[in-house]
Amino acid sequence: MKRFDLSLYLVTDRGLSLGRPLESIVEEAVKGGVTMVQLREKDCSSLEFYELGQKLKKLLSPLNIPLIINDRLDIALAVDADGLHIGQNDLPWKVARQLLGPDKILGLSVETQQQVEEANSLDIDYIGVSPVFATPTKTDTFQPFGLEGLKDACRISQFPAVAIGGINASNAASIIEHGAQGIAVVSAISSAESPLAAAKDLKERIQQIEIR
Amino acid sequence: MKRFDLSLYLVTDRGLSLGRPLESIVEEAVKGGVTMVQLREKDCSSLEFYELGQKLKKLLSPLNIPLIINDRLDIALAVDADGLHIGQNDLPWKVARQLLGPDKILGLSVETQQQVEEANSLDIDYIGVSPVFATPTKTDTFQPFGLEGLKDACRISQFPAVAIGGINASNAASIIEHGAQGIAVVSAISSAESPLAAAKDLKERIQQIEIR
Repeated sequence: MKRFDLSLYLVTDRGLSLGRPLESIVEEAVKGGVTMVQLREKDCSSLEFYELGQKLKKLLSPLNIPLIINDRLDIALAVDADGLHIGQNDLPWKVARQLLGPDKILGLSVETQQQVEEANSLDIDYIGVSPVFATPTKTDTFQPFGLEGLKDACRISQFPAVAIGGINASNAASIIEHGAQGIAVVSAISSAESPLAAAKDLKERIQQIEIR
Repeated sequence: MKRFDLSLYLVTDRGLSLGRPLESIVEEAVKGGVTMVQLREKDCSSLEFYELGQKLKKLLSPLNIPLIINDRLDIALAVDADGLHIGQNDLPWKVARQLLGPDKILGLSVETQQQVEEANSLDIDYIGVSPVFATPTKTDTFQPFGLEGLKDACRISQFPAVAIGGINASNAASIIEHGAQGIAVVSAISSAESPLAAAKDLKERIQQIEIR
């Protein structure tokens, strides 16, 4: 049985970390209550990606916080990460599942309601509803789902859903209210003056909804 | 026993293919006598890389021409390529070998004589001496080996060596004369008006040395 908690999911981006080392952002974020971490790095060598993965694995593993690698299945295998997150332009889910094995977490980004439906027949573990709001972080995306679209997606999906895109303290609670299991954030934590305080604040806003 | 023939090794680059589809370049090159093909693509999605790999695998496998994937171990695994070629900034060779298994071909780029020596203790199958001449294709490289440097590298190395960088019809023969098992070319075939004729010409120049 795979156990993971999507509620506060940090997606890394060194470009948005205000020059601070990735490990310190992640370390603070985890102290603030982050429940999962996705290493997403687009412009680095495989060696650098691998070394970052190793560092995060060492940091997160003792805390039982899953480390998920974005896109790069080889890095996920090389650092024995807890899982892989793929998008629609990454390796096909079937290939990814076959090489990862059944015990690893496999997440898939969905960008339309049709993709939410299609995902229901796949051997994956969660969906990433992307983007829920317009965002400057990713530019190659479809129309945002919006809160009503997110609600529909969560209703249709047989998998737990984490929402991503433009989420911050002001709208975090509404994401959970509309059916998502969690929020995935990039800049709301990585660009915060205090990643720890930002994570803690987001966590409290989510928990207030969860305990209602 | 792994069998491969480094003598005329095509390294792909869609940017240098004058707009022609990669498969047609490779198909022609193989008809002209190419003995190995490395799929090297830097600016494409994982899905596109995977699909290109599948196409080349389908093309090359019946001809018993090894398909080697550059850098991306996951793509190599996903398309069941014959091997992987890594550089000094890619995954560590040990990780690559472990995930590839003992039967796949593993090539390593070496950029200095020190790296040639270090490679001798690794579980790899060939070295790529890079660059032998100055080249516009790669800009992040060390000083070129030159022909005398290549000769030294081939003498020092316990592995067969293929040379890359600035190789064309005018200097192909000298590469073999200086001890390399083969030449690796990008634009000399991919940018040629006729990749078939270009490959054939290179092949003849190499064979003239080999049969001496």
